[in-house]
Amino acid sequence: MVGVIGGGQLARMCQPPAVALGVQLSVLVEDGQASAALVVPSAPVGGHDDLAAVREFARRCDVVTFDHEQVPTGVLAALEADGVDLQPSPRALVFAQDKLLMRRRLTDLGVPCPRWAQVVSAEEVAAFGAEVGWPLVVKAPRGGYDGKGVLVASCAADVEPWLAAVARDRAAVESSSTEGVGSPRPAFADGLLVEEKVDFVRELAVSVARSPSGQASAWPVVETVQVDGVCAEVLAPAPGLSEEIAGAATRDALRIAGELGVTGVLAVEMFELAAGPGEDRPRFVVNELAMRPHNSGHWTIEGAVTSQFEQHLRAVLDLPLGDPRPRARWTVMGNVLGGDYPELYSTYRHLLARDPGLRVHFYGKEVRPGRKIGHVTVCGDDLADLRDRARHATEFVSGVVTE
Amino acid sequence: MVGVIGGGQLARMCQPPAVALGVQLSVLVEDGQASAALVVPSAPVGGHDDLAAVREFARRCDVVTFDHEQVPTGVLAALEADGVDLQPSPRALVFAQDKLLMRRRLTDLGVPCPRWAQVVSAEEVAAFGAEVGWPLVVKAPRGGYDGKGVLVASCAADVEPWLAAVARDRAAVESSSTEGVGSPRPAFADGLLVEEKVDFVRELAVSVARSPSGQASAWPVVETVQVDGVCAEVLAPAPGLSEEIAGAATRDALRIAGELGVTGVLAVEMFELAAGPGEDRPRFVVNELAMRPHNSGHWTIEGAVTSQFEQHLRAVLDLPLGDPRPRARWTVMGNVLGGDYPELYSTYRHLLARDPGLRVHFYGKEVRPGRKIGHVTVCGDDLADLRDRARHATEFVSGVVTE
Repeated sequence: MVGVIGGGQLARMCQPPAVALGVQLSVLVEDGQASAALVVPSAPVGGHDDLAAVREFARRCDVVTFDHEQVPTGVLAALEADGVDLQPSPRALVFAQDKLLMRRRLTDLGVPCPRWAQVVSAEEVAAFGAEVGWPLVVKAPRGGYDGKGVLVASCAADVEPWLAAVARDRAAVESSSTEGVGSPRPAFADGLLVEEKVDFVRELAVSVARSPSGQASAWPVVETVQVDGVCAEVLAPAPGLSEEIAGAATRDALRIAGELGVTGVLAVEMFELAAGPGEDRPRFVVNELAMRPHNSGHWTIEGAVTSQFEQHLRAVLDLPLGDPRPRARWTVMGNVLGGDYPELYSTYRHLLARDPGLRVHFYGKEVRPGRKIGHVTVCGDDLADLRDRARHATEFVSGVVTE
Repeated sequence: MVGVIGGGQLARMCQPPAVALGVQLSVLVEDGQASAALVVPSAPVGGHDDLAAVREFARRCDVVTFDHEQVPTGVLAALEADGVDLQPSPRALVFAQDKLLMRRRLTDLGVPCPRWAQVVSAEEVAAFGAEVGWPLVVKAPRGGYDGKGVLVASCAADVEPWLAAVARDRAAVESSSTEGVGSPRPAFADGLLVEEKVDFVRELAVSVARSPSGQASAWPVVETVQVDGVCAEVLAPAPGLSEEIAGAATRDALRIAGELGVTGVLAVEMFELAAGPGEDRPRFVVNELAMRPHNSGHWTIEGAVTSQFEQHLRAVLDLPLGDPRPRARWTVMGNVLGGDYPELYSTYRHLLARDPGLRVHFYGKEVRPGRKIGHVTVCGDDLADLRDRARHATEFVSGVVTE
């Protein structure tokens, strides 16, 4: 039995390969109508920060993995003390939970990163801005996702509300000698991560998988297109990417997985940079890490021999990994965001009727404007046509186009 | 909510596309450890011949379909009277349940069949044998599958035990004026179906899907290789098949689906015949019909844009059908039968390690010698290599080869 903490769409999409592999899943869900609870028979309800619930859940699983990075450090430590087989281990996972630790570790490893600093005061923000130039990207070290917890600051004053939170969280931590096991370290207790705003050409992502035995495999580097901080489209493989960058990005992702002891899927989000004057090669820097199946890898369900969800299950069970090679020349994935109309049925019929080759994935989530409720994938030889088809489908659901 | 009566591997394999489509499944299972019950949250236990259980199950479903053809006519009639949306309808399904009705209807439609007769006595068997030549293929009209319910008779005496059953079942039906709703018509109450033993070149199968609105689609014709009456291997598409036969077989399958009012997937098993002396074209005859996803279509999970399981769900929900085209030049599917060792784990690791491109499907069934416990699929350009890989995997699990 593979346990997944969290019942979102990532846990849900592990169920199809679990069915094929003959693996039994169990998901710890926030509520009985969670995306994964609708499709997995064993879906006890409990909070990921409720130690008793997580402990009881883990006791019945052979291995425990994650739908998200939000399980508090104290809960992870208690599970590990219980002898629970956590994949990835808390020692690896912390680098996906805490962006300050991630930046420090990647910098130590020599992995290219944006210039960054850890700051607790307006003076430090101003000094860093003076050094690298404004605007700055300011990040909450913990708890952010999909653009939440990120601020673009044009001047030190823009950061003031967050610095107030830093002061509050630091005071709170100092005044309490022990944190509760289930209470996460406050988001701002270690200050803020500030980074130069990188002038990138485009965003890339590379996903790899690694098993506890150390077997590793990598999917092709993809291009991700973000709109308002949320991934809108993934092109696999990244069109026109030089072999040099593809190779270097893949090697760095595999090295990060190995050095950090990641097990399961690791997704590395990157910025591709233009070659500067006098430089003979374009470069990239690492933006974020995720230690689980990731939105940038949904294309692998149809687009690769082995999907990221199957590979994650194989990896956390320490089974031999599957072939990650692409099955088509191009695969395009588009995220489906909710529109203003909660009723999906007629939209759904329209999508299927208009494009019989469109692969649709709906997550069983209630429609709310801007919420990721599904995705679509198309594979083929003509990239422009695939992008048109995926974009039409996603814009039709969200109401941007009416035909 | 799509209800499936029966909890075997066919119901189980509907769950992955249901997850993607955002469709909720419910399966009526024989017991809580049934193959589909392990992967579908809503899996009430009840017999397919237990009217009360089936009725209660159907009441909570928007549409009801089937994992097998064993639901008694009386139960189907009662559900229909209750207003349950049955897909396929009992009027269509009866031609997959009763081989005598099927032969008569296909013959009326002008679909090529082996020469056949309905017999109740040794004299009739002998007369048919004298007409078409021995041996004969003798079939129980109802209840057979995977070679069960089929007898190859070299002389009339070989059929005697079955003729005794005919006499018994006919007497039983005559003495009871009303059959219980849940009791199926006895297998031999209408006598036996006898057929000429066709001298075929190979076996073919063609699967089509049809929706209640009448939309239909067909997958390529495949070759099926049987061993001891059980499908061992499927080659998609059938190698070297003439366009003429492929076209005629597909047209006949679509015509059968339309004329019989089939909804969901229809699989038509056929024998390909050598051209006789003076004939200018090879021919085929129809062997069996199945009105559900079928073993000969498992290759579509990886091998076609839309799998038979997804297409079945779309069809029974009257949603637009998906693209049935193949995704690779060749796809080979091999059935995995249980061997002498009940423990699968080390075998399983070996399979995954030896061939990372092998797609494995295990059904969560206890291993018994000869039982279908899973299947493997490989896609690619080199048919001989794919057949070797699939055969090695299946023979390794069943213990025929040890490496």
